[in-house]
Amino acid sequence: MFKVNDYFGRLQGSYLFTEIAHRVNAYTKENPDKEIIRLGIGDVTRPLAPAVLQAIDAATREMSDAKTFMGYGPEQGYEFLRAAIRENDYLARGVEIGLDEIFVSDGSKCDTGNIQELLSADCKIGVTDPVYPVYVDTNVMAGRSGEFDAAKGEFTEITYIPTTAENGFVPALPERRVDVMYLCSPNNPTGTAMTKEQLKVWVDWANETGALILFDGAYEHFITDENVPHSIYEIDGAKTCAVEFRSFSKTAGFTGTRCAYTVIPKELAGENSRGEKVSLNAMWLRRHSTKFNGVSYIVQRGAAAVYTEEGKKQIDETIAFYLENAKIIREGLGRIGITAYGGVNSPYVWLKTPNGMKSWDFFDKLLTEANVVGTPGSGFGSAGEGYFRLTAFNTRENTEKAISRLANLK
Amino acid sequence: MFKVNDYFGRLQGSYLFTEIAHRVNAYTKENPDKEIIRLGIGDVTRPLAPAVLQAIDAATREMSDAKTFMGYGPEQGYEFLRAAIRENDYLARGVEIGLDEIFVSDGSKCDTGNIQELLSADCKIGVTDPVYPVYVDTNVMAGRSGEFDAAKGEFTEITYIPTTAENGFVPALPERRVDVMYLCSPNNPTGTAMTKEQLKVWVDWANETGALILFDGAYEHFITDENVPHSIYEIDGAKTCAVEFRSFSKTAGFTGTRCAYTVIPKELAGENSRGEKVSLNAMWLRRHSTKFNGVSYIVQRGAAAVYTEEGKKQIDETIAFYLENAKIIREGLGRIGITAYGGVNSPYVWLKTPNGMKSWDFFDKLLTEANVVGTPGSGFGSAGEGYFRLTAFNTRENTEKAISRLANLK
Repeated sequence: MFKVNDYFGRLQGSYLFTEIAHRVNAYTKENPDKEIIRLGIGDVTRPLAPAVLQAIDAATREMSDAKTFMGYGPEQGYEFLRAAIRENDYLARGVEIGLDEIFVSDGSKCDTGNIQELLSADCKIGVTDPVYPVYVDTNVMAGRSGEFDAAKGEFTEITYIPTTAENGFVPALPERRVDVMYLCSPNNPTGTAMTKEQLKVWVDWANETGALILFDGAYEHFITDENVPHSIYEIDGAKTCAVEFRSFSKTAGFTGTRCAYTVIPKELAGENSRGEKVSLNAMWLRRHSTKFNGVSYIVQRGAAAVYTEEGKKQIDETIAFYLENAKIIREGLGRIGITAYGGVNSPYVWLKTPNGMKSWDFFDKLLTEANVVGTPGSGFGSAGEGYFRLTAFNTRENTEKAISRLANLK
Repeated sequence: MFKVNDYFGRLQGSYLFTEIAHRVNAYTKENPDKEIIRLGIGDVTRPLAPAVLQAIDAATREMSDAKTFMGYGPEQGYEFLRAAIRENDYLARGVEIGLDEIFVSDGSKCDTGNIQELLSADCKIGVTDPVYPVYVDTNVMAGRSGEFDAAKGEFTEITYIPTTAENGFVPALPERRVDVMYLCSPNNPTGTAMTKEQLKVWVDWANETGALILFDGAYEHFITDENVPHSIYEIDGAKTCAVEFRSFSKTAGFTGTRCAYTVIPKELAGENSRGEKVSLNAMWLRRHSTKFNGVSYIVQRGAAAVYTEEGKKQIDETIAFYLENAKIIREGLGRIGITAYGGVNSPYVWLKTPNGMKSWDFFDKLLTEANVVGTPGSGFGSAGEGYFRLTAFNTRENTEKAISRLANLK
C-alpha cells in the first residue's frame, strides 16, 4: 500500500473557531431572542471599491471578445499589476524593488505555506506567541515541528517567542538556533506593530546569524504611526535576509476576491548542502511557474485599480472606517477599565481580560452577559492566555452597541 | 546560513518553449514579411461563454453592496459550484460522488503538484512518456526523482512508461514497483484517450498492488467516443485507488480565469508508517484549509454558469469548433501522407514525422518552409522523439491555411 506523509499525524486539531461556533450555537438555541454581535471575525465586510468594480467589469468585457480575450497569463503576474505595486508600495516609500522581485499570487496564506518548499527539511523554525496558526501547521506538515508536547502545548522543534504586555509585545531574539523566523507586523492577533528600531534588531540578527525572516505584512494598510515601517525593506539590510508577504485581502476587501503578492529580493540567498549560495528568487520563480498558473486576469485588473487615484481614495476611506471602529472599541474598553492594546495600526484590539480571567471564561461571560462574540487569546498560543481579540470589521452601529453592552457588564 | 531544498538543484532546465520562441524569433527577424501560423500553443483562444460572463457580472454586482458582499468563502469551494459539478459531471453519468469529495481550486496544475504533500517522501512515481512535465518536475522538487541520468534523459527513481504508436498509445503496466502513477486521458501531448477496458486494467493493477492513480482529466470535455470514460470513477474499483483532477481551463476557456477541481473519494486511503489506513480526503481537506483560501467568489459563480442550460450549449459549441479544427488538421495530414494520432477526443494532434525525422528537424522544416509553428514531441520526453504536436486552438482560417501550406511541403 502506498505510504502517506506521516507528519500530518502530528497536526493538532484546530478547534478554535469550531469551538466558538459550538458555544454560540448552543447559547442562541437556548436564547433565540438575544441579538448576538460578532466581533470575532477576521474577515472584511465593506464592499469592493467602485474603482475596483469598474476595472473588473472592463476586464470581463475583454474576456467576451476573441480579439481581447486573455488566456494563460505570466505565472508571476501581469506586468501592469507588478508595476503598480512597485511604484506605489515601494518606490513611493523610497524602497527600490525590481519588477522581477514581485510575485503575484492568490493569497498570502498560500504563499507563507508554499515558501517552505524552498527550504531544507531540517531548518529550525521560530514564531512569535500568540501566532497565526498557519505558520505552525504548515511546518508540521513539512516535518519541521518535532513532536507535540501536550503539557506545554508546543511542538518541541519550534521556537515560540512570547509577545505579551510584559515585553510590550516586542519579541526578544531567540535563545536557541532559529533558521527561519516568522514575523507579522502589524500583528495578527495582537494588533500591535513593530517600530523601525524594533524591526532593525531582527534584521541585524538575521544577517548576523544567517537566518531568514518571513515577514507578513498583510495588515500594512492599517498603519497610522509614522515610525512603523510599511515594508521590511525600509530597514537597511532586509534585502539580504527577508521575504515579504503582502495582500489585497484586508487592504482592499479582497478576502473573497483573492489576490496577494510576495517580494523576494535578488540579493536574498540561502545555502545548499555543498555550501553554495542559492537565490531564493530563482527558486521561487521555478516553483511558481511549475506549480502555479497565475491569478485570474479579471482579479489582477481589479487589484491594479487599487492603485489608481480614485481607488486609493476609496480604499483609504474604508480603512479609515475600520480604524474608527477600532478606536471606538479601544477607547470604550479604556473607559470601563479594561486594558487594551493594538487597534491603532490594526483592525484588531487585543485586550487583557479583567481580574486575570482565563480567555475562554471571558468568552463565556461576554457571550452570555453581553451577547458579544470575540476570540479567546489562548486559541492563538499559550502566551495568548488571559487575552482576548475583538475586531473592527462590524458595522459602526453594532460596534458602538457592543461597547455599550460591555460597559454594563457586572 | 539557512539551508535550501537541495532537490531544486536536480531540476533540468525546461527549455522547450524557450527554445521554440528563440527559433521563431530568429526566423522572423530574418524574414519579417513571412506570416507565421502558430499551432504550438496549448492555450484556448475563444472568449468566455455569454452565460459565464453574465454570472461574473452578477457576482461583481454582489461585491458592490455590503448586504451581498462575499468575504472569505469555504476553502473547499462554494456548495453551489460543488453541487453543480456533482450533478452534471458525476450523477448524470451514473457516478455517485459526495459533495465533500469535491474540492474546488484555482488550477489542476496546482493540484497535481500539491497533492504530493499527502504522500510519503519515498513513494515511487510512475509517468507515461511523453509526459506533461509538471508531474515530473514537482516530484523532483519533493525529492522523489533520484538523480538525473543525462544519457537516458531520465531520473533514476521515476518509472517512465512509453506510450507510442508501437503500443497504440496504451501504457503497459510497470515492471518495477510504482506507488503513485500519473495518468492523463485524453492525453497531453498525444491527444489519444484510454477506453474503459484499458483504464480498467490500471484500476485493477492499482487495487492489487496498493498503488495510487493520479488521474488528470483536464481534456474530458473533448471526448466524443462512447467507449472513452469521462471520469475514472466510471470504472469499478476506482474509488479505492484514484484521485481525479478536472479543470474549467480547456472545458470553458478558463485558462486566464482560473478554476478547477479535484475529487478524492472517502474510500481512498493510504497507509502511515505504523501500517494504519489514513484517508486522503481528510488529509487534503486539512491541507486545503491550511494552505489555501478558496477560489475567487466571482470566478466560482462564472464556473457554476458552465452547468446552466445556456452555458452547456455555449460551451459545447466552442468545443465543437476546436474539434472541427482538430479534424481539419488530422484529415489534412492524412491526405498528404503524414500519419497522425489524437484529435478525436482531444484538441491535440500528434503526428509521426515523415521519414523518421527528428522532432526538432521537423520543427525547423515546418517553420522555414511552411511558416507553421508546432511543438517537437521530444520536448515531452524521450519517447516523444520522432513525433510532433499540433493544436486545434487557432482560428478556422489559420488552421486551414496551415494545412494547405503543409500540403505544399517538399
